[in-house]
Amino acid sequence: ENILEAKPIIYRQIAVPQPGIKEYCTDSGLVVPSVSYELHKRLLSVAERHGLSLERRLEMTGVCASQMALTLLGGPNRLTPKNVHQRPTVVLLCGPHVQGAQGISCGRHLANHEVEVILFLPNFVKMLEAITSELSLFSKTGGKQVSSIKDLPDSPVDLVISCLDSHENAFLREQPWYRAAADWANQNRAPVLSIDPPVSGREAAVESKWALALGLPLPLSESVGRVYLCDIGVPKQVFQEVGIKYHSPFGCKFVIPLHSP
Amino acid sequence: ENILEAKPIIYRQIAVPQPGIKEYCTDSGLVVPSVSYELHKRLLSVAERHGLSLERRLEMTGVCASQMALTLLGGPNRLTPKNVHQRPTVVLLCGPHVQGAQGISCGRHLANHEVEVILFLPNFVKMLEAITSELSLFSKTGGKQVSSIKDLPDSPVDLVISCLDSHENAFLREQPWYRAAADWANQNRAPVLSIDPPVSGREAAVESKWALALGLPLPLSESVGRVYLCDIGVPKQVFQEVGIKYHSPFGCKFVIPLHSP
Repeated sequence: ENILEAKPIIYRQIAVPQPGIKEYCTDSGLVVPSVSYELHKRLLSVAERHGLSLERRLEMTGVCASQMALTLLGGPNRLTPKNVHQRPTVVLLCGPHVQGAQGISCGRHLANHEVEVILFLPNFVKMLEAITSELSLFSKTGGKQVSSIKDLPDSPVDLVISCLDSHENAFLREQPWYRAAADWANQNRAPVLSIDPPVSGREAAVESKWALALGLPLPLSESVGRVYLCDIGVPKQVFQEVGIKYHSPFGCKFVIPLHSP
Repeated sequence: ENILEAKPIIYRQIAVPQPGIKEYCTDSGLVVPSVSYELHKRLLSVAERHGLSLERRLEMTGVCASQMALTLLGGPNRLTPKNVHQRPTVVLLCGPHVQGAQGISCGRHLANHEVEVILFLPNFVKMLEAITSELSLFSKTGGKQVSSIKDLPDSPVDLVISCLDSHENAFLREQPWYRAAADWANQNRAPVLSIDPPVSGREAAVESKWALALGLPLPLSESVGRVYLCDIGVPKQVFQEVGIKYHSPFGCKFVIPLHSP
């Protein structure tokens, strides 16, 4: 007989004020609901008010995103003293916004781990303070910074990390530097990791293989690839303050894969 | 015949200005020399000048130390949704200094991961700013804060994390709160992890099983237990500025075990 096994228990330990947009689940079956961009923004701003400054968040996001990237690059098999002459190359494509700053932080931690890092950031006269402080630290690593697509490698690199999009300024996509960077990424054939990609009405300019969502996922389009969730250190009571009932889905990890049930 | 195998190649990728104090090596044989407390302090102060603020360092140290603690607690075997009624209990013993602030940050990240955290911090009228901002964030987790040893558990906990010692104020050891905390730890029989223990002329008041050194190790006494090294995000050129030739010994990890060769 075709006896169906009991379905795995679904654990609803996170409840959001406006459920029903899109839900994910963890490897162990915990349900992780998505939140709207507005609620996500409110969560971060309440966290900042309690002292989880942008600077702290950039540091933690950079550490955890680089840990994920190091795993994607092959982890201990790739980064051993024996492989010192075959260091992996990672290109970070960053826009002039907080998402870009997150990418620079990730790039710094990768460069600190002897990854060959090339950071693309377009030239602007006035930069966000978060960008300039990240750049100042990045400049002390062995990483390279370029502002023109012409200075990016022609041959395939090991990994491209895309931080081109901001959540608010969709018009950036029309700018020449954005289109050039997106074209370069699509031509390079390296797998792409998107950090903190926005909710997108239309197709992503760069199709990614993996996406890293921060804290709680937004309802992401399929074109961002496999979704991972990154712990960004928001304490439970901050979730409560914005109306989210929350228990950590992370277990002992700081980055976990999410699935569409 | 008793043919000796060729010894593993020792890779000297880190060179310090005053070698010879004490050396460690990694699992893959890389030599990690220790540095004096004065040089370590200069390293951190130059890093701060370039933008690696104390706040950033506290965040990164907290994340990486909590990752180590989660592994010591049993990792994925212990922290699954099935074990939600058997949450591990960790007591953090913190003094009123930067080392204590590092402990509070670690405790916050542990509490964020559903560990039962009890933070001991003695009462002082005026606290270091780094302590008050860490406490403010910690208070938003489900963690508990106590200022009296009487409020710590009588029965053995799963892990004690000691951040009682500062590098500069050895006289703290004579204070009643310190002696009470050390006595409690020694009586509890839980294994102890020391974060950032000082170079000690005499026996440690709390004998630890593991010690986590930050960035580069100090020449630590045997009584701190097995030494681990934590990446705190200092870029290569900052090492150079204080006279240290540096290549990361971390590979793809952020916390690695060190051995006395």
